[in-house]
Amino acid sequence: MNTLLKSAELLTKVRELKPLVHHITNYVTVNDCANVTLAVGASPVMADDIAEVTDIVSISSAVVLNIGTLNQRTIQSMISAGGHANKIGVPVVLDPVGVGASVLRNETVEKIVSQVKCSVIRGNISEIRYLAGISSVTKGVDASEVDALDNSVSKVEIAQLVAKKYNCVVAITGAIDILSDGARTISISNGREFLGSITGTGCMCTSLIGSFCGVTSDYLIAATSGILCMGICAELVFDYVGQNQLGSYRVAMMDEISNLSVEILQTKGRVDESIC
Amino acid sequence: MNTLLKSAELLTKVRELKPLVHHITNYVTVNDCANVTLAVGASPVMADDIAEVTDIVSISSAVVLNIGTLNQRTIQSMISAGGHANKIGVPVVLDPVGVGASVLRNETVEKIVSQVKCSVIRGNISEIRYLAGISSVTKGVDASEVDALDNSVSKVEIAQLVAKKYNCVVAITGAIDILSDGARTISISNGREFLGSITGTGCMCTSLIGSFCGVTSDYLIAATSGILCMGICAELVFDYVGQNQLGSYRVAMMDEISNLSVEILQTKGRVDESIC
Amino acid sequence: MNTLLKSAELLTKVRELKPLVHHITNYVTVNDCANVTLAVGASPVMADDIAEVTDIVSISSAVVLNIGTLNQRTIQSMISAGGHANKIGVPVVLDPVGVGASVLRNETVEKIVSQVKCSVIRGNISEIRYLAGISSVTKGVDASEVDALDNSVSKVEIAQLVAKKYNCVVAITGAIDILSDGARTISISNGREFLGSITGTGCMCTSLIGSFCGVTSDYLIAATSGILCMGICAELVFDYVGQNQLGSYRVAMMDEISNLSVEILQTKGRVDESIC
Repeated sequence: MNTLLKSAELLTKVRELKPLVHHITNYVTVNDCANVTLAVGASPVMADDIAEVTDIVSISSAVVLNIGTLNQRTIQSMISAGGHANKIGVPVVLDPVGVGASVLRNETVEKIVSQVKCSVIRGNISEIRYLAGISSVTKGVDASEVDALDNSVSKVEIAQLVAKKYNCVVAITGAIDILSDGARTISISNGREFLGSITGTGCMCTSLIGSFCGVTSDYLIAATSGILCMGICAELVFDYVGQNQLGSYRVAMMDEISNLSVEILQTKGRVDESIC
Repeated sequence: MNTLLKSAELLTKVRELKPLVHHITNYVTVNDCANVTLAVGASPVMADDIAEVTDIVSISSAVVLNIGTLNQRTIQSMISAGGHANKIGVPVVLDPVGVGASVLRNETVEKIVSQVKCSVIRGNISEIRYLAGISSVTKGVDASEVDALDNSVSKVEIAQLVAKKYNCVVAITGAIDILSDGARTISISNGREFLGSITGTGCMCTSLIGSFCGVTSDYLIAATSGILCMGICAELVFDYVGQNQLGSYRVAMMDEISNLSVEILQTKGRVDESIC
Repeated sequence: MNTLLKSAELLTKVRELKPLVHHITNYVTVNDCANVTLAVGASPVMADDIAEVTDIVSISSAVVLNIGTLNQRTIQSMISAGGHANKIGVPVVLDPVGVGASVLRNETVEKIVSQVKCSVIRGNISEIRYLAGISSVTKGVDASEVDALDNSVSKVEIAQLVAKKYNCVVAITGAIDILSDGARTISISNGREFLGSITGTGCMCTSLIGSFCGVTSDYLIAATSGILCMGICAELVFDYVGQNQLGSYRVAMMDEISNLSVEILQTKGRVDESIC
């Protein structure tokens, strides 16, 4: 069965099972994360106090850890939630927002990946280069152009390297998205440039991946499905919204994700499974 | 004077008096809470540090306590703000988001209701069942289908029970909304299903109730008015937005609430005061 | 060279250089602040843990301190970030949200301005009156009508007084915006009333000012440019959105800011440099 068909089936499954996705995430894009989780058919719950995260993990189907506005209090909660998720078999998806930009972010990601088994790590090229131990040039929470254009080590090699290092699925999102679980590697060529001009599209993508992880144990397909949703909907949106309409893009993305059919996903998805 | 007329008069009063509504609320839907408070004609202020909440309560006309993303720091602030509000006669509206989903939420709500006199408690059926001491099945912060369909104890009885238990107005929002102050019980049958598919519509409803509580001491009518605004506007929105447009729904809800006339409120409101 | 031409050139420069703007801000309007920063062409980063703020300041071109939902933890971070910005020559923009409404806000602003050299302070008339040591009537985080209508001391005098007191640019935003660096004073008469009915338009204005401060050392022009963007776009929006559409205004503001051309800025800007 091909990847697009599997993704289409997962989308149906998310809408049937409405998995609960526990987020410990940043306060900048949290509303978009909650709404995109609902739009795809899953159910979000945000809870970050250490006194309740294990209770919330216990009723959830996936956990999303996003360090966008990390602080000492919530870092502890992330470790606790992630550890409990590992113990009871709930998948953990990590979004290492802005790793490379501060010692705190670097140490926090190091702490998470050393103490929590992550099923998927999604980041931009600067973040994943950092995780690979390859020189990266930070631009805060966005990928730097230097890193995006640097092909001294290919994105495919970087994804594979990090996937093997942490024994998980790695997704590098950008103009072309690269996903790898170390053995299989996939590229996706959907999307529109405006996604880089709205805050939270990376976080939303991670929340979608978390939603799909809540209904399957094939995390490479889960990550592929989340990225496909963002990319295909961006294309649909761009067709009618046009240039430079950052407010309308954001609204229309939620419309399209809540409207996305399995047929459109299968027709418009551009997945390349033969890249290596 | 009938309920719809009273609600219409309250709407006019909110727009004239622009009551300041102090929120201690979650970071997921806080922006929607602020905007809906402005849209109905009131004025929001969000402040959660224990060193300032009594100052802010002192200049406010109502206080909204919403435990959506509670933490140890803000729980203390809620107790302090609620206590001060009680002392100076400012009404407190409680949204026990996700109570039943964690021990921390359960203990926090217990702490609040035992130390703070609430004028209104608004929640979904799972949350209010929990408060009634009736078995409830949590789905994180959303009502579970099990609880929504369970009629072993009627929603009317549950609302009345909790209203008497805490000596306050209780509002159970859902397909049909049930409100009771223990003596009087009202149902409202406005609304559209999409309200359950956007994050924050429950929180927004609570903020609207807080806005109306800021201009009256008849908290049953205040709660009715807030719920009517959400329900009627959802119907107006659905008529032109159509199916599965989660982004557009959210935008259009703010448009309709800012535009809502007393005439439309009186024409479209479906309140049943004879349910028991 | 006139002010509008300088502002137009700064807009081009922001889009070319994409300055990174570090925000320590409130959780109510933070998403709008991030999106407006992107919309004007700059790059936002939000980080508030004291363990990382100096790292983030070090890679940023401007720092925005907004006390909208201040707390003990982030107040320390603001002082630390501001101090480091001063040390390495990064401009600091202060938004003293709601100062006058609580002792905590008053003491915090006092602490910031005594320990951090701010390049720009932007506030509404109630907030700037408070900073001037003139009686002010608080309405939470919004300007009170009493203060807006009180002309016993003119807004021009107040702006000049605070600018001299803190040796910085002061911007009082309202129906007519007044800006002063103590020596030069400017008024801007763009804008539409709806800006006061959406949460976060003041914060967004401050983020725009921060974005412009990231590409110039003429902070009076930077502040002028940010205010012009908000005001002109509000006029464009109002022309097609109409009355009482709070949801649509917010979306359309982002559209217009992302679309704003230097030609429109120069044609529509109404700056008066001869007011004193």
